Amino acid sequence: MKLENDTFIRALFREPTAYTPIWLMRQAGRYLPEYNQTRARAGNFLALCKNPDLATEVTMQPLARYRLDAAIVFSDILTIPDAMGLGLYFAEGEGPKFERPLREEWEIRDLSAPDPTVHLRYVLDTVRQVRKSLAGSVPLIGFSGSPFTLACYMIEGRGSSDFASVKKMLYQRPDLLHKILAVNAQAVTDYLNAQIEAGAQAVMLFDTWGGMLSDAAYHEFSLAYIKQIIGSLKRENEGMRVPSIVFTKGGGGWLESIADTGCDAVGLDWTINIGAAKARVGARVALQGNMDPAVLLSSPEAVQREAVAILEQFGSGPGHVFNLGHGISQFTPPEHVSALIEAVRGFGACND
Amino acid sequence: MKLENDTFIRALFREPTAYTPIWLMRQAGRYLPEYNQTRARAGNFLALCKNPDLATEVTMQPLARYRLDAAIVFSDILTIPDAMGLGLYFAEGEGPKFERPLREEWEIRDLSAPDPTVHLRYVLDTVRQVRKSLAGSVPLIGFSGSPFTLACYMIEGRGSSDFASVKKMLYQRPDLLHKILAVNAQAVTDYLNAQIEAGAQAVMLFDTWGGMLSDAAYHEFSLAYIKQIIGSLKRENEGMRVPSIVFTKGGGGWLESIADTGCDAVGLDWTINIGAAKARVGARVALQGNMDPAVLLSSPEAVQREAVAILEQFGSGPGHVFNLGHGISQFTPPEHVSALIEAVRGFGACND
Repeated sequence: MKLENDTFIRALFREPTAYTPIWLMRQAGRYLPEYNQTRARAGNFLALCKNPDLATEVTMQPLARYRLDAAIVFSDILTIPDAMGLGLYFAEGEGPKFERPLREEWEIRDLSAPDPTVHLRYVLDTVRQVRKSLAGSVPLIGFSGSPFTLACYMIEGRGSSDFASVKKMLYQRPDLLHKILAVNAQAVTDYLNAQIEAGAQAVMLFDTWGGMLSDAAYHEFSLAYIKQIIGSLKRENEGMRVPSIVFTKGGGGWLESIADTGCDAVGLDWTINIGAAKARVGARVALQGNMDPAVLLSSPEAVQREAVAILEQFGSGPGHVFNLGHGISQFTPPEHVSALIEAVRGFGACND
Repeated sequence: MKLENDTFIRALFREPTAYTPIWLMRQAGRYLPEYNQTRARAGNFLALCKNPDLATEVTMQPLARYRLDAAIVFSDILTIPDAMGLGLYFAEGEGPKFERPLREEWEIRDLSAPDPTVHLRYVLDTVRQVRKSLAGSVPLIGFSGSPFTLACYMIEGRGSSDFASVKKMLYQRPDLLHKILAVNAQAVTDYLNAQIEAGAQAVMLFDTWGGMLSDAAYHEFSLAYIKQIIGSLKRENEGMRVPSIVFTKGGGGWLESIADTGCDAVGLDWTINIGAAKARVGARVALQGNMDPAVLLSSPEAVQREAVAILEQFGSGPGHVFNLGHGISQFTPPEHVSALIEAVRGFGACND
């Protein structure tokens, strides 16, 4: 099926587009009253993820409100360890946790990649349903957490300010961490390919915690596995090329290495100047980003000003997908998102 | 008074030294049982900071245990806003908080730089006492939080994962934030100069939160004020030059700009390869860092291996002060610190 609006896909392949496409990380989320209503019907966040009808509903909500250029399947970055049996749950007002984090060496030795068509079927069903709902209007993004980011939660059992247990293992028993990461890499590959086969038209890897590693450890324990995944992804489906995006939060120092993974686009957090990033890797990959989500808390005028500043930093030429540098805050006034999208659309053509 | 061991000062000025000097951020801290005993006698952390006798005692403790090449006055980065009347306190097991954070515009308009010889006299008394206790053995470092980092806590009233109130002000009322920062810059300048006059032989600015800003915002709201301070510091005392160190956590993308402030050394967190940092700015400034504090949680062998890796990354030539990339963890086994110091001392001369 040909897409009515393929600006997002074209920009990821660094092809000319009539304007800079935009989507927002976590665009289906708590800042939208309609999302909160659906979530209340589901009972909780995880139940919402696991119900394809309701997950499809919330995936579509931001597209009904805003002129976004892509949808992203509503899910969580930690579905894989849940499918491995670790028991993902969300305590109210807190981040993700696992009931059975990896504590013993035998648990690590026993770990294996789940079959996504069995254990993550609810995600694939959502992908298929969303594609039907989209009816070719804009492309659908599938995603997963990176092997290292999954490992962080699998070992620590929850979020952390320093992931001390993970790092202790990294330095003391690197063999064990590598074992977990190898399984995770296989699992992520299978999962993303299954999402592509189910209809995802682009895929993104969220490496939320790679940025807290040393330069050497990042390359060995996070990026090496990302590269392996990128090299094993299906590159085409339904006769269309499927682009991949890699986003390491705090990875501004490693853009060249990230571009070397073979991905089509690199996600940027807000701490880097996107013009400087373009000068470093813009000839090889597209760039996605990179407004500080906190700008959306301020005022429509500031939103407009900061969006234009980023568009001007990127400058002319193709290869820019506008986004935030991290997920949108639940405290964002929805009308500020309108101001952002108007500013980006209004900025005009970038197809020279 | 001539220093018996001036390797730290010489390294900061990029002069040859017989070995790479080392000290550790937060070296007087909870990982040391003797520290916990003194802290218990003081009652709490802030009482310890404000008691020059006990603060001197804990400042000296790590030097009694380890062959460190510098002492750092035991204090907190947030003493200035406390001296401004905001009421610093530490709830047990939590980070710093302020009883009276800046909420109203008139409170910001009324803000003024405190006289350190009156309101921060306890710190200056500690500096004088520590200098007596050191008796010329190793140099003493004075320090302060950066204007922006102080402002973060002054506005938010406590630590935060995203400092949303601060960023909201930054984008919506930059004039108000600039007013706070201008007062803070004056206060920090007066405070560091008072520490130098009291006997601090080097000074360090801790910009703990500058790294969460966008590239443009970092330069405008954090670094500009740091530069102003560096330009107004006393450069000499007791006939000796007084070096300055600037450390922005997460500032690896901005090393060139930080070096441009006129500081003598740039502190590095652990996410950057120190060899790459040296290639960028090592001809202009010394570098301080940059082992991940989490390495100290692992094993003496891993500590040894990682320390040597950093020393080899830096390579030959002067201008390296070994340190962690952030404060030492309270869960560090003290014997791992011994392993670290032996590894650094054992690495040999760096004075070619």
